[in-house]
Amino acid sequence: MSIQTEAYQHILFEIEGAIAYVTMNRPAQRNALSLEHMKELLHCFKQIQENRSVAVVVLRGAGPAFCAGHDLKEMRGETASFYRNLFGVCSELMETIQTIPQPVIAQVQGIATAAGCQLVATCDLAVAADTAVFATPGVKIGLFCSTPMVALSRAIGRKKAMEMLLTGEAMSAQDAVAAGLINRAVAEEKLTEATEALARKIAEASPYTVGIGKQAFYKQMEMPQSLAYSFAREVMSVNAVAEDAHEGICAFLEKRPPIWRGR
Amino acid sequence: MSIQTEAYQHILFEIEGAIAYVTMNRPAQRNALSLEHMKELLHCFKQIQENRSVAVVVLRGAGPAFCAGHDLKEMRGETASFYRNLFGVCSELMETIQTIPQPVIAQVQGIATAAGCQLVATCDLAVAADTAVFATPGVKIGLFCSTPMVALSRAIGRKKAMEMLLTGEAMSAQDAVAAGLINRAVAEEKLTEATEALARKIAEASPYTVGIGKQAFYKQMEMPQSLAYSFAREVMSVNAVAEDAHEGICAFLEKRPPIWRGR
Amino acid sequence: MSIQTEAYQHILFEIEGAIAYVTMNRPAQRNALSLEHMKELLHCFKQIQENRSVAVVVLRGAGPAFCAGHDLKEMRGETASFYRNLFGVCSELMETIQTIPQPVIAQVQGIATAAGCQLVATCDLAVAADTAVFATPGVKIGLFCSTPMVALSRAIGRKKAMEMLLTGEAMSAQDAVAAGLINRAVAEEKLTEATEALARKIAEASPYTVGIGKQAFYKQMEMPQSLAYSFAREVMSVNAVAEDAHEGICAFLEKRPPIWRGR
Repeated sequence: MSIQTEAYQHILFEIEGAIAYVTMNRPAQRNALSLEHMKELLHCFKQIQENRSVAVVVLRGAGPAFCAGHDLKEMRGETASFYRNLFGVCSELMETIQTIPQPVIAQVQGIATAAGCQLVATCDLAVAADTAVFATPGVKIGLFCSTPMVALSRAIGRKKAMEMLLTGEAMSAQDAVAAGLINRAVAEEKLTEATEALARKIAEASPYTVGIGKQAFYKQMEMPQSLAYSFAREVMSVNAVAEDAHEGICAFLEKRPPIWRGR
Repeated sequence: MSIQTEAYQHILFEIEGAIAYVTMNRPAQRNALSLEHMKELLHCFKQIQENRSVAVVVLRGAGPAFCAGHDLKEMRGETASFYRNLFGVCSELMETIQTIPQPVIAQVQGIATAAGCQLVATCDLAVAADTAVFATPGVKIGLFCSTPMVALSRAIGRKKAMEMLLTGEAMSAQDAVAAGLINRAVAEEKLTEATEALARKIAEASPYTVGIGKQAFYKQMEMPQSLAYSFAREVMSVNAVAEDAHEGICAFLEKRPPIWRGR
Repeated sequence: MSIQTEAYQHILFEIEGAIAYVTMNRPAQRNALSLEHMKELLHCFKQIQENRSVAVVVLRGAGPAFCAGHDLKEMRGETASFYRNLFGVCSELMETIQTIPQPVIAQVQGIATAAGCQLVATCDLAVAADTAVFATPGVKIGLFCSTPMVALSRAIGRKKAMEMLLTGEAMSAQDAVAAGLINRAVAEEKLTEATEALARKIAEASPYTVGIGKQAFYKQMEMPQSLAYSFAREVMSVNAVAEDAHEGICAFLEKRPPIWRGR
C-alpha cells in the first residue's frame, strides 16, 4: 500500500515500506527541471533526510522520459542573477541527493539529458532501460553543460566525459554501463523490477549502517588518501561500537538473521 | 584549401576552415620530441590560442608513428639542469594543450610511447587506428615515465596505469578504448575520416561556448565537488547571458539552425 | 631455491631471487586479518622496504581463499579504542604496501572480501583466478566497510564502488577486470604462472628506477595536476642523471641489454 505523504505540484512522493519513490511528474515537458520543480525535489529530499523510516529512495520520471534537463522556456533573456539562482538551486539539489543518508537510485527510461544526465551521475546508483540514452547537449544550443559536467566528470573517465560535453551526442545505456555512469541496463519491461530488487536489497541492511557509509563515501572522496584513512578509521570505530554492528556480527557468527534497531 | 600560416622546422601547421592541423613532422625519428620540436609545438599551440577563427585542433604525426616520446639521442650524459629544462618545456606543452580554449584531438597511428602516450592522454579527445599501440616504456631503459604518469594516471584507472608504467608493455587500441585512454579505434584507412568527423561535429558549435566549457573542465576537475559547483555555477551563468546562448536557445525553441556570433 | 628469512606465526615469507613471496597463512580462517596477523604483515613489508635485493613482492593466501577480511571473532563487544587501534594498524598496513619502493602484486584465488578486497584494491597490481570473487559485505553485518571504501573508491568508478559497498554483493573476476580492480583474470591452474610472469617482467627493470616510479605514482596522484607536473619533473630529472638511466639509454641506443647497478 502506498502512502502519499505530501502534496506537490510537479512531483509525486510515495512511501511503500522502507522505500520512498520520488517521481518527476511533468511528462508533457519530459520532466524538465523548472525552478519550481527543482524546489519541490529539494524540499522532498530534505523531508526524506528527516524520515528515519525511509531506508532507500527511487528517483524516477513519469512518462516516456526520465528528465530532459532545465526548462528552456524559462531561460530566454533572463538576467545573470536569475541564472545564478537557478543553477544554485540545481546544484543544491544535486548535493542534497548525495548528502542525505539514504541511498538514491535513479530509475531511467527514455532520455536523461543535461541536468537530467547530471541527476543520473549524481544518484548513488542508477538502473536504466537498455533503450535509455544519456547526453549533455548544451553545447548545441550555446549553453555548455557546465554544472552537469561537475557530476559527469566525477562519475566517468575524462575522455568519455569530454566527448559527451564537446559533441553533445548521446551515449547508449550499454556504453553508460561500461563507462560507469549507470550500474546496469535491463529490458524496458524489467526496469521497475530490477530497480525494486536493488532497492529491496539495500533495505535489508541496517539503515543506520547504510547512512553512515553513504555519507562517509562522498566526504572521503574529497580527501587525500592518508586523511581519508584517518577519517574512515574514526567512522568505522564509531560504527563498530553501535548496536547494529554488535547485533550483525553476533547474528553472523550465530548463523541467524540480524534484527536491526537502526542505531 | 589549406593555408600554411607559419614556417616551422619540425612541425607542419595548416588551417582548413575552422580546423587547425598540427603535424609532428620528423617521420624518420618517429616524431620524437626533441627540445626544439617541443618548443615549436608549444609556440604553435600558443598561436592557436590567439586565433579566434580556429574552433578545433587535430594533432597528428607524419609517417608510420604518432610519436615515440623524447629524443633519446639528446638525453645521454646531460646535466640535471638540462633535464629539468627539457621536462619543464614538455610539461608546459602538455598543460598548454589543456589550457587553450580550442579542443585538441589526437589522431593516432602506429606507436604513441612515453611522452607520445602522454600527448594522447593529455589531448581532450583521441581517435586511433585499431593497429595503434600505447606504452610508457621508460622503465625498460632505466628512466621511469614520471611526467607521462601525471597525464596517464588522470586518464585511466590506477591498476591499468601502474601496469603500463611498471612493465613498459604496450596496450592495444581496443584496450585503450576500454580503459578510457582514447575515444575510439577505427580501421587504419578510416582514421582521417573518423577524426575529421569528430572535429567537424565540434566545429558546428559556438566556439565561444566550447571554449568556456573546455577551459572550465580542467579547472573544476582540480576542485572539491562543492567548490566545483560554485565555480561551474558562475561559469554557466556568464555563459547563459551571452549572445550565443540566447541565440542557441531561441533557435532551438523556434526549430531553426542557430547563427553563432562567437560571444 | 627458497630462502625463509623470518619466522612468523601467521604468515610465510620467502625470497626467490629478486621476488619476495608474502603468504597469508591462516587457511582455516580463510586468512582473516586478526590484529596479530596484520602486525606480522606490516613488519614483513617494512623488512622488505629495507631489503634492496627484493625487486618485487607477491602477496598471496594459503588455502582456498585469498583473504576474508577482519577476524570477526575478535570484534564482538570491544571498546571504541580497541577498534581504533585495529583499524589504525590495518590502514598503516595498506599505506605501507603503497609506500615501499617495491611493487606488490596480489595473487588472488577464492574470495577477497572486506579488508581482503581492500588489499587487492591497495596492491599496485593484481592477478586473479577467473573464479575469484570480490566483495565489501560489511553492510550485511551492520559494519560498513568504511576503511576498505578508501582503497576501493580510488581503484574503481563511483557507481560500481557504491554498489559493492551498499549491497555487499560479490563482483566476479571478469567484472573486476572491466572495473579496473584487478589487472587480469586467468584460469585457476594458470594463476601462479601468470603472476610469476608479471613479477619477472618487473624484476627485469632497474629496481632503482622502479622504486622511484612507484613511490612517485601515489604522491603525484594526491596533487593538483600542475603541482604533480612540478613534482614529476624533479623526480624525472634526478632519475635522468642516475647511473641506471645513463646505462639504460646507452644500452638501448647501442642495441645491447643493460646492466643495472641499482642506483
